[in-house]
Amino acid sequence: MAEKIRVLQFGLGPIGQACVRTLSEKSGVELVGSVDIDPAKVGKHLGEVAGLKKKLGIAVRADAQQALQELRPQIVVHTTSSFLSVVENQLILCLRAGASVVSSTEELFYPFERDSGFCERVDAVARQHGVAVVGTGVNPGFAMDVLPLCLTSMCVRIKKIRVTRVVDAGLRRLPLQKKVGAGISRAEFRERLAQGTFGHIGLRESALAIMATLGWKLDEMSESIKPVMAARPIKTKFLTIKAGSVAGLHQKIRCTSGGREVLTLELKMHAGAKEAYDGVEIDGDPPLSMRIDGGIFGDTATIAALVNTIPKIKNAKPGLRTMMELSMPYAFL
Amino acid sequence: MAEKIRVLQFGLGPIGQACVRTLSEKSGVELVGSVDIDPAKVGKHLGEVAGLKKKLGIAVRADAQQALQELRPQIVVHTTSSFLSVVENQLILCLRAGASVVSSTEELFYPFERDSGFCERVDAVARQHGVAVVGTGVNPGFAMDVLPLCLTSMCVRIKKIRVTRVVDAGLRRLPLQKKVGAGISRAEFRERLAQGTFGHIGLRESALAIMATLGWKLDEMSESIKPVMAARPIKTKFLTIKAGSVAGLHQKIRCTSGGREVLTLELKMHAGAKEAYDGVEIDGDPPLSMRIDGGIFGDTATIAALVNTIPKIKNAKPGLRTMMELSMPYAFL
Repeated sequence: MAEKIRVLQFGLGPIGQACVRTLSEKSGVELVGSVDIDPAKVGKHLGEVAGLKKKLGIAVRADAQQALQELRPQIVVHTTSSFLSVVENQLILCLRAGASVVSSTEELFYPFERDSGFCERVDAVARQHGVAVVGTGVNPGFAMDVLPLCLTSMCVRIKKIRVTRVVDAGLRRLPLQKKVGAGISRAEFRERLAQGTFGHIGLRESALAIMATLGWKLDEMSESIKPVMAARPIKTKFLTIKAGSVAGLHQKIRCTSGGREVLTLELKMHAGAKEAYDGVEIDGDPPLSMRIDGGIFGDTATIAALVNTIPKIKNAKPGLRTMMELSMPYAFL
Repeated sequence: MAEKIRVLQFGLGPIGQACVRTLSEKSGVELVGSVDIDPAKVGKHLGEVAGLKKKLGIAVRADAQQALQELRPQIVVHTTSSFLSVVENQLILCLRAGASVVSSTEELFYPFERDSGFCERVDAVARQHGVAVVGTGVNPGFAMDVLPLCLTSMCVRIKKIRVTRVVDAGLRRLPLQKKVGAGISRAEFRERLAQGTFGHIGLRESALAIMATLGWKLDEMSESIKPVMAARPIKTKFLTIKAGSVAGLHQKIRCTSGGREVLTLELKMHAGAKEAYDGVEIDGDPPLSMRIDGGIFGDTATIAALVNTIPKIKNAKPGLRTMMELSMPYAFL
């Protein structure tokens, strides 16, 4: 029997709480601690905060540095924010404490284009302490990047890749429904879009990861985000969306290389999506057409992506890593 | 520009010839030599033997040891036989010459159960010379093992995995049509089966690889091979199969763990298959249902699997490796 991996959960929002529930069931994992800044959670039993019946014998702590130093986790599962600028100091604390990190930070899935300074700093600290850090999840992290890339391994030549993900946001957690604009007006949608903080984070990262991994020189990348309107009222577990309001969004990225479109990523996330699926079409030799009916259910798959990456980041080469560099993904049961 | 990888092609059957055609198109590869035992090929121009219009400036050689010593390839693409017992000396020659090997040998995809002595010997030689060796292909190597394993990375819990591959053998190369028994009688099918050398090689390896990778203790494995009969005459490019003759085979493996069936692999390879596809069904959390309509076209995908693994085996830890240990698969364009 291999020794259990000592894991600390950093961030106890809905995703972090679900990670704790899953981690508490894994025989190969010893949960050693948890950190969150929410005063309503600090000091409470982790089991309670995570909605478990057992307490787990772990208190939620506010001071990450102190917790990391005292509890000496080998791995931190990090779920606090989508943005590099927010997580940099958190990641560096973990790495300095000798812990490798699996993070849900969308921008971390492929961070090189967005912030090379961040990458250099985080990579240097990780190498210095002999540990590794990676960003993963279902999207970015699998459905629109890792999975299509895996499928390309069956092709000797590729002209074009088209990846489509249609998500019925009405079946997902409330923060996701809000994130895609469910229930707002077309005018509000435009306003949020103009503020530049709207839309799914990570589609750009998926596109950049595919282009770079296949060695395709990126000439141009264009991105569009449009609202999907509710034709009739839609009722979700959390919201009622009036007819004529926004049901969600339709986001699209096109990449050209050598004067032609080689990659299209299309993401539709809206309440009332009749036909949710994940699709990959490769125009290549041989051609390939893959479809996952119903799509990969994101709320659970995100947890799986994080937890299943624990053994892989533990054995990874020190530094800032990507999923494309780790050994191939599979379940850690 | 990275330096070109020096590659030698070992084995010039239909698969080896197709590898040469693909390798000759890759800007990252320098073909430095080729080896085959067929007197009809030895001494000829490699380009000619491979059916290319250019000669490639390489002669087909018979003496593998001498060719390896003189040409110093970094990687050998090895396509000679399905069986460990046949390839052991060939692989050891390559490894001793300091070349890493990507092999199409089906039994090499997951060789640990079949011949632990082979594994120890090959692993030791590879480590001693700082090089690595791996077996891969479309099946085994991807469709019924690597791809389902990748999909499990999206699950937090898994009860059962069911993998199905239906191949229209009538569209494949003649050796494959013969391999699945196309055109023979039911009696001949039984006879060949009794000889124990019939059926697709590698299904057992796929099953063992999935069980071991997921850490599932294998209680029992049962395998069946049945003929698929031609209900009406079937004409392929190479054969005419009479009604009432064998069109191909239906091979199935079931694995139990903890008293219940956890893995089923089902392979149908016959001429006239109306609906070819690759399917993976995961009964887990979340459940997943993947389908590749038309299936992954094996003749080309086998070449892709071999060639696309070249950069991965080049960077692998020395020793006998599996695809599950290498960095995730993707195209080497």
